[in-house]
Amino acid sequence: MNRKTDTPVTVIGLGLMGRALAGAFLKAGHPTTVWNRTTSRADHLVAEGARLAPTVGDALKASPLTIICVTDYPAMRELLGASDGELDGKMLINLTSGDSAQARETAQWAEQRGAHYLDGAIMAIPSAIGTAEAVILHSGPRPDFEAHKPTLDALGTVTYLGADHGLASLYDVAGLAMMWSVLNAWLQGTALLRTAGVDAATYAPFARQIAAEVAGWLPGYAEQIDSGSFPAEVSALETDARAMAHLIEESEAVGVNAELPKLIKAMADRSIAAGHGGEQYPVLIEEFGKPRND
Amino acid sequence: MNRKTDTPVTVIGLGLMGRALAGAFLKAGHPTTVWNRTTSRADHLVAEGARLAPTVGDALKASPLTIICVTDYPAMRELLGASDGELDGKMLINLTSGDSAQARETAQWAEQRGAHYLDGAIMAIPSAIGTAEAVILHSGPRPDFEAHKPTLDALGTVTYLGADHGLASLYDVAGLAMMWSVLNAWLQGTALLRTAGVDAATYAPFARQIAAEVAGWLPGYAEQIDSGSFPAEVSALETDARAMAHLIEESEAVGVNAELPKLIKAMADRSIAAGHGGEQYPVLIEEFGKPRND
Repeated sequence: MNRKTDTPVTVIGLGLMGRALAGAFLKAGHPTTVWNRTTSRADHLVAEGARLAPTVGDALKASPLTIICVTDYPAMRELLGASDGELDGKMLINLTSGDSAQARETAQWAEQRGAHYLDGAIMAIPSAIGTAEAVILHSGPRPDFEAHKPTLDALGTVTYLGADHGLASLYDVAGLAMMWSVLNAWLQGTALLRTAGVDAATYAPFARQIAAEVAGWLPGYAEQIDSGSFPAEVSALETDARAMAHLIEESEAVGVNAELPKLIKAMADRSIAAGHGGEQYPVLIEEFGKPRND
Repeated sequence: MNRKTDTPVTVIGLGLMGRALAGAFLKAGHPTTVWNRTTSRADHLVAEGARLAPTVGDALKASPLTIICVTDYPAMRELLGASDGELDGKMLINLTSGDSAQARETAQWAEQRGAHYLDGAIMAIPSAIGTAEAVILHSGPRPDFEAHKPTLDALGTVTYLGADHGLASLYDVAGLAMMWSVLNAWLQGTALLRTAGVDAATYAPFARQIAAEVAGWLPGYAEQIDSGSFPAEVSALETDARAMAHLIEESEAVGVNAELPKLIKAMADRSIAAGHGGEQYPVLIEEFGKPRND
C-alpha cells in the first residue's frame, strides 16, 4: 500500500483504543505526538518513539492532523475548547463514541473555530487496530477525508460514508444492532437445540449458513423499501406470522426464553393489523421506522 | 446426480407445497400417486402423469414411501388413522409444520402402527422445490433416511439431522429465528439511516457484510458455550452494554422504533446483573436458555 508515512499525527486520549491508534501510527512511521490527562498512559508509546505533549494546545500545534478518542463528546469539547486558538486550520478526526446529533453539533462547533472536522466510528477492538480487519467509518466533507486517507490507512480499513457528519454514528449503531441480533438469534437457536442434546458446535454451522444466506437477500429486499412497494414474491407476512407462532410455542414448550420470538411476532402482528398481511417482510420498515405509540 | 427415478412415491396433501413436492417427483420420473380431500387440486398433477388415489388407504398402498404435507399434525393423524391397517411396513415422511413434541409423539404413533417414520421440515418456498436451493431437514432413524435419500433428492438439498424426531422442527424454528433476526436488524438499521436520507439500497451492502462477518464468528463462539467458559477475549459484556445504550438513545433521538434495541440491552443487563459483565457475549446463553421468571 502506498502510505504517506512522514506526515506528523497527534492522538489525544490514551485509553485502550487511543493507545492502539497511536501505536499503529508509530508502527507505520508517522512522527506521533500524544496527549493524555494521566501522562503515565503514554509511557509505552514514548518508549516506542512518541512525543508526549505537555498540553492539549501543544499537542494540536504539533501536527496538521489530530485524532481524538476520549470518553465522550462533552469531554472532547472541554479538552479542545480550552485551546480554541489552536484549532484554526487544523484537521480534527473525532473517533469518540457518541450519537449522530452530537457529531453534527460538534462539527458546527469545530467549524466555528476554523477547524476541519470528520466524525468517525471504530468498528473494531483495540487489538485489531493497524490490521485490515479494523473497519473505521468516517463522515464529513469528502475532500477532508481524501486528503488524510493516506495517513488514516495506517489504522485499518478506512471507509467514507458521506458528507453528513452524523453518518458514522448511525452506521456504527446499525452495524452493532446487526451484530447483536445475529448473536441473539444464534443463542435462541442454540438454547432450543440444547434441550434436545445438540451441542453448540453442532448447531453453529447451520446458524452461520442461514445468516449468510439471508444477508444475501438484503440488497434485493432494499429495492422494495426504496420503491415503497412490497409484493409477496417470496412469502406473505401472514405466512411468516404463522411460523412465528410456532417459534414462540416451541420456545415455551421446551422451556427457553421466548422474549425475542415474541418481539419478532409482535412487530409482524402490528404490520398485519395495519393491513400488510399480504405483503412481503420488508413492509415492516413502516413499524421499525416509527416509535411505538400504543 | 445419481437418482433412483423408478421408485413409486405417494404425496398426501396438495396445498401449494404438496403440489410442488408431487410435481418435483413427477419431473424426476417417479411414478407418483397423490391424494387430497379436494380432488380438483390434483388436476394439474394428473395432467402431468400423477395418479389420483380415491382414498388415503389406496394412496398408501400405491407406494413404499409416502410424503405427507397437510395443515397440521392432528389433521395428519386423523387422515392416516382411518387407514391404520395400511401403515404397516410403510415409510412415512411427514413434512407438515409442527413442533418437536408433536413430531416425537407422531413418531411413536406411527411406530405403534408398524410404520417407519421420519419427521421433516421444509426450509424453502414452494417455487424452490426441486432445486438445490430447497433445503429439507429430516430427523428420525438414519437407516430410514439413507434408504430413501435417492428418492428424496428429487425435492432439493435433503439433510439428515439425527435420530431424535424432534430435531427437524427445532432446527426449522431456530433457522427462522435467525432469518427474522437478520431481517429485523437490517430494518432497524435501514430505519436509522433513512432519517439521514440514506436509502435502503445504499445501506444494504453494509448490513450484509456485518451479518456475514458475525455469522463467521459463531463456530468459535460455540466453543465457549460447549466449554461453559466465557473469557472476554474480544470484548466484555459490559462494554457491549454501553454501546447498546447508544443504540437505544440514537433510535429514540431520531424517532425510530426502539423495542428491538431495548430487548437487546435487557437481555445483556440481566446477564450483567447475574455477575457476567466481565465475560464475553455467548455467556448470554444462560439468559436465552431459561424462561423469564420475573
